[in-house]
Amino acid sequence: MPDRLPEKTVERLSQYRRILLNYQFLEHAFIYSHNLARIVKTNAANVRRDLMLIGMSGDFHKGYDINELLSKINLALNYERVTPIAFVGMGELGRSVAAHFGQHNPAMQIVATFVFGKPPAEIVDGIPVYNISQLQKVIKETSVELCVVAVPAEFARELTSIMVSSGVTGILNFSPVQLQVPAWVHVEQFDIITKLEKTAYFMKRSQKNG
Amino acid sequence: MPDRLPEKTVERLSQYRRILLNYQFLEHAFIYSHNLARIVKTNAANVRRDLMLIGMSGDFHKGYDINELLSKINLALNYERVTPIAFVGMGELGRSVAAHFGQHNPAMQIVATFVFGKPPAEIVDGIPVYNISQLQKVIKETSVELCVVAVPAEFARELTSIMVSSGVTGILNFSPVQLQVPAWVHVEQFDIITKLEKTAYFMKRSQKNG
Repeated sequence: MPDRLPEKTVERLSQYRRILLNYQFLEHAFIYSHNLARIVKTNAANVRRDLMLIGMSGDFHKGYDINELLSKINLALNYERVTPIAFVGMGELGRSVAAHFGQHNPAMQIVATFVFGKPPAEIVDGIPVYNISQLQKVIKETSVELCVVAVPAEFARELTSIMVSSGVTGILNFSPVQLQVPAWVHVEQFDIITKLEKTAYFMKRSQKNG
Repeated sequence: MPDRLPEKTVERLSQYRRILLNYQFLEHAFIYSHNLARIVKTNAANVRRDLMLIGMSGDFHKGYDINELLSKINLALNYERVTPIAFVGMGELGRSVAAHFGQHNPAMQIVATFVFGKPPAEIVDGIPVYNISQLQKVIKETSVELCVVAVPAEFARELTSIMVSSGVTGILNFSPVQLQVPAWVHVEQFDIITKLEKTAYFMKRSQKNG
């Protein structure tokens, strides 16, 4: 396996995995590359290349063994090692994402949620909730490595520098701000402005043609 | 101009526009396709094709006229018409996105925010805040057309059907749930699970090699 898989491959492996989890309790179940391709909206050649990269070979007649494929994806995406995660300013959405991982990916462990203002309770759905002023202290105590950040633009930079100096090495950023981080920190940017403008565009088209 | 632009073109036009807004007050300013391409991480051929699709032609020596380009993009993305938008369960992030549009895109007008539990105030940063139980009433009264939805999975489907029956025709969905909507409603899905798993993957790689 290459030391570092291509970005698109990593995204698709995560998507294949989520689909395959639905079939994991079937005995001797197989799936064809073109079926996986259709579900994640790519082509079968991409699927076969992705799976070749993680050392998976299919049977020409039967396709890919689903349980073997799940193990290989877990290995490739490093799910034997738990990542402690914190949500910063994510509101209600955090609950939903935490519940998903609790059921489907124990390697992603949400250990803290931070809110602006007074926490509604000390623990919500099993996850401790803190005021944002506790950020540095809690990240250090709970060894948080990855933060999902959804905060007003004016706070994004300052909070990022607190996270990084406290040991965070991965940030998924929803705030419409470019974060400046040291080279060892991986930032994944979620461009909500573009997505919202795109939704408005296609929505108006539907209305016009509908 | 084609009646419906390709998805990627719409995304890139939104991104070009955001960059160009920084230069809009320069007189007679021009930009080359390869510079736009570098900033939005695509290639110059894509930029030229996108701009050709919206009827924009560049000067071989000088590049594209920035103010003309901004007008053409505004026209192509239909920004002469205001879209009333509501945020449902977005927490602190909503403020940040609303502030961005207030400054940079008056066609995207955030008219309401909905929270679970008691609203912190009647109006926050100029936007009225309501409890989620008011969803149907407020959408109808304020003619909301587009909702950004970030709610726990167990509520996503029910709230979606309320939105659609109240007149919403566009949904940007952050919840990890596939929404079922009628054909005239455009749903844009933001796959937070995949992005989070991807961040964790590249983060671990950085650590390993760092």
